[in-house]
Amino acid sequence: MNNSTFQPIHEIGFSELIKKLGAYKGTPRKEILEGIGDDAVIFSSESEYSFSASTEIFMEGVHFDLTYHPLNHLGYKVVTAAVSDIYAMNTKPFQLLVSIAVPNMHSVEMVEKLYEGIDMACKDYEIQITGGDTTASHQLLAISVTAIGKGNKNQVIYRKGSTEGDLICVTGDFGAAMAGLRILMREKNEWREKGDLHFRPDLENYEYVIKRQLFPAARKDVIRLFEENNIIPSSLTDVTQGVVSAVSNLANASSLGADIFLPAIPISLETRKVADEMQEDVDKYAFYGGEDFELMFTLPESKIKELEVLFDDFAVIGKMTDKKNILKIDTGGEETIHIEI
Amino acid sequence: MNNSTFQPIHEIGFSELIKKLGAYKGTPRKEILEGIGDDAVIFSSESEYSFSASTEIFMEGVHFDLTYHPLNHLGYKVVTAAVSDIYAMNTKPFQLLVSIAVPNMHSVEMVEKLYEGIDMACKDYEIQITGGDTTASHQLLAISVTAIGKGNKNQVIYRKGSTEGDLICVTGDFGAAMAGLRILMREKNEWREKGDLHFRPDLENYEYVIKRQLFPAARKDVIRLFEENNIIPSSLTDVTQGVVSAVSNLANASSLGADIFLPAIPISLETRKVADEMQEDVDKYAFYGGEDFELMFTLPESKIKELEVLFDDFAVIGKMTDKKNILKIDTGGEETIHIEI
Repeated sequence: MNNSTFQPIHEIGFSELIKKLGAYKGTPRKEILEGIGDDAVIFSSESEYSFSASTEIFMEGVHFDLTYHPLNHLGYKVVTAAVSDIYAMNTKPFQLLVSIAVPNMHSVEMVEKLYEGIDMACKDYEIQITGGDTTASHQLLAISVTAIGKGNKNQVIYRKGSTEGDLICVTGDFGAAMAGLRILMREKNEWREKGDLHFRPDLENYEYVIKRQLFPAARKDVIRLFEENNIIPSSLTDVTQGVVSAVSNLANASSLGADIFLPAIPISLETRKVADEMQEDVDKYAFYGGEDFELMFTLPESKIKELEVLFDDFAVIGKMTDKKNILKIDTGGEETIHIEI
Repeated sequence: MNNSTFQPIHEIGFSELIKKLGAYKGTPRKEILEGIGDDAVIFSSESEYSFSASTEIFMEGVHFDLTYHPLNHLGYKVVTAAVSDIYAMNTKPFQLLVSIAVPNMHSVEMVEKLYEGIDMACKDYEIQITGGDTTASHQLLAISVTAIGKGNKNQVIYRKGSTEGDLICVTGDFGAAMAGLRILMREKNEWREKGDLHFRPDLENYEYVIKRQLFPAARKDVIRLFEENNIIPSSLTDVTQGVVSAVSNLANASSLGADIFLPAIPISLETRKVADEMQEDVDKYAFYGGEDFELMFTLPESKIKELEVLFDDFAVIGKMTDKKNILKIDTGGEETIHIEI
């Protein structure tokens, strides 16, 4: 290798790297209706259905920490992460391929515990485990999952598709998974510092946020609600890297901008309490915190009332504008923030 | 965790572990025509096509060694491994999802080199790269690929399906990838022992076997030949863990046994030379060596002549018998080996 061209990844960051890798496309195929750039690939079946597929990889030490993540919860979470992308296309998952690479010193029971969680999630999401790869790893546990889903071909929803004036809606609340992570890391540090084998972490008042971090669920219920009531949002994505990233993805995909009203973003009381304790800004948890696995979608204003009658776990947080590449955040106070997206 | 139930994986081995994990199936779905247990899952599209999907994970230090594996060749190889399973169902791959977890200290150029190989393979195999996940890893490079293919629903071929008397055929030759690995490891050890930065490995006379190890190709040509000539083997698999494992998989899937004539197994001269140098048994390379990515299939005897006219890169190595679970190996000499499969 020519060292003069050596550029470490951290210099450009992963999002730049991902952009560069997008240049490698292989052979374009007519079966592919939507490839890289949305939450999942959409491919044609030549029937009334389209299929969706999404894959994720989880590395010990980066994406999970076995000192506080029970393996069954971890198994559940990796499935949630994969199917959330399938729901984000308004399709429903029906199968999961799982690959694990596991150090030899791990026990059979540990792997079974992980699979108990995967199995439980697959039962909840109504998907069959159809295959995978189980192999050795040198040091760390790695888990890769691919979820495949399907939907009526006329009802697939993309990140693109919204028009100016469409309202931006979100399910659930935000920043809770991030708050949970903060608490778990604090307790882990305390345990390390004390070096006390009998140390019991103080998690009693943080049940909600810890559950959101360790054992999150994807919004199958919302996709079913859309189907049963024939609601077809103009655009849809899942929120896995915070509200700002999701709004940006929807706005950019439709060459629009967005206005967000900050006080409208749902944040739970427990999440607020954690941010206070940590002396951190709770809005940052919601804006940039990952792994909420909620849905964000756009609808014309005229459709909102219809949805409100059916469903109360959603909030309107803003609207799409013609200010391309600009996210305007109204803080509810004197300040207005403009972010280039 | 209850330590009294702690059983390290190495005590039972990975094949036992995989059997145990087969118990976790999630929710059975009618779309799944064939799940765990074949080379790839087969699922229905509700059109004239069926789809296939297969996933593999590759961990640095276990499945590849960057000290001698050029990253573009590695990229090519992981795609070969994934599509080989798709061809093994007599289906053709059309898309690939790629996940990589890469240590931060790796360079952008390294990742691009890997993708150059992935892209080249996807062009050769006519598949589109449709998505994936690109993320950080703590220490080691991990690569996971999922290939999705399709085929006419009446032409999918499974491991099961052969009948007593069907002849067992193989494409190409065996043990070469294993021989290549032996040479690469020998040269790596020599380089380590000498500690000489200017050491150049002696690979000149081993080009064929090293290529089979580092830069293998899957048998797209054979699947195309089957299609163009309307040849439908009674059963089919790819040979990725040696001839014995592949024969066992075909025989067991049809509740049969198999007779193999050892001298009929194709082994290249270069592979034989390497085994001689290593003072090892070349038959073991063919029987148990991995990553040949050849195909094994069964045909009634009456069909063999037809295939011989069309194609010369295949050999008949034995036949299916009614001796369930027994693999009989005729060594061509006085000895006959019986293996319980």
